[in-house]
Amino acid sequence: MSLPPHVLPVRLEHAYRLLNHGPTVLVSSAHAGRCNVMAAAWNMPLEFSPPRLAVVIDKSTLTRELVEASGRLVLNLPPQALADACFAVGSVSSRELAPAQDKLTAFGLERFDMPEAEAPLVGGCLAWLACRVLPEPHVQAAYDLFVVEVLAAWADTRVFEDGRWRPLQDIPPALRTLHHLGGGQFWVPGQALQAAAPARP
Amino acid sequence: MSLPPHVLPVRLEHAYRLLNHGPTVLVSSAHAGRCNVMAAAWNMPLEFSPPRLAVVIDKSTLTRELVEASGRLVLNLPPQALADACFAVGSVSSRELAPAQDKLTAFGLERFDMPEAEAPLVGGCLAWLACRVLPEPHVQAAYDLFVVEVLAAWADTRVFEDGRWRPLQDIPPALRTLHHLGGGQFWVPGQALQAAAPARP
Repeated sequence: MSLPPHVLPVRLEHAYRLLNHGPTVLVSSAHAGRCNVMAAAWNMPLEFSPPRLAVVIDKSTLTRELVEASGRLVLNLPPQALADACFAVGSVSSRELAPAQDKLTAFGLERFDMPEAEAPLVGGCLAWLACRVLPEPHVQAAYDLFVVEVLAAWADTRVFEDGRWRPLQDIPPALRTLHHLGGGQFWVPGQALQAAAPARP
Repeated sequence: MSLPPHVLPVRLEHAYRLLNHGPTVLVSSAHAGRCNVMAAAWNMPLEFSPPRLAVVIDKSTLTRELVEASGRLVLNLPPQALADACFAVGSVSSRELAPAQDKLTAFGLERFDMPEAEAPLVGGCLAWLACRVLPEPHVQAAYDLFVVEVLAAWADTRVFEDGRWRPLQDIPPALRTLHHLGGGQFWVPGQALQAAAPARP
């Protein structure tokens, strides 16, 4: 129940900034003694404050079952160092595991727990957003689309501090975000730029 | 009504791959002789086939008015070379322009038209997805969330061909995707990696 080294809470009004640039996340969930984790490139912010997000969770997944039962999930931002595990939990179904096994354990992911989250937080990630589902039965059924509200967030201060990502050159490549193209192929940020302030026409 | 050099159609079942890694897009729209463009970091794929996407369009925008009236929009993927224009159309409202002006013209963006799209395509972009709105009045009103279906897509073959992004090292930095952090600050992909195939546990 204690934060890993380097990790601090993120103010709720800054939580959307963790996802604004389109990283792939890991969705962790738990219910009635079972837990699971899957990868989700299909996520986006929906609202600054209250901080709301959208994420797609397919009907065939155990995550869907656990999230619908618990009404809770955690979005974890994996760093480049966890690319293999991210691809593994995104392509192997929990249905392929032995009955007592869970995907975090099966793929060597560490976990920790926080009181605000009713699902495991994946160790070694860059940031974590503990969320509750805002029930929207129609879009959940029609599009596998879940609207969630962030209840608490944390980030590794080596990459994100005082509500902002650190300058990219100060973030070691192993701690940069993953952006999934498909089939386990990822792009990782390598260049930062500041656009010019627009001239008001 | 003709494609720019290097541009070819993208098969509909590959269209989601243009957005899977989380790039910021430009949303263009038109209705009754008016047109507009705005930036949208908040977008994601929803379904492979039929290709469906989600995008957030704030109630205060002219884009919202045009999209609700026409039921159509185009998502354009701006390259790094258009970062200043992307920030400008994302931070200056069309309400600030003279009545006869449109944001494409005001910010020096070229445009072309395609029969499948009832909105202008922004010149110099990497890819274009012509979409129709699937009416979802509740989530449009509650979350500014639009569900759209891709009717046609095109990409610059210097970056995306045969349904896949080219190897990153073959894409010049000026033609890489933009990932908005906020305030005109962008990260651009600089490293590619292939995760190891997972061992079935």
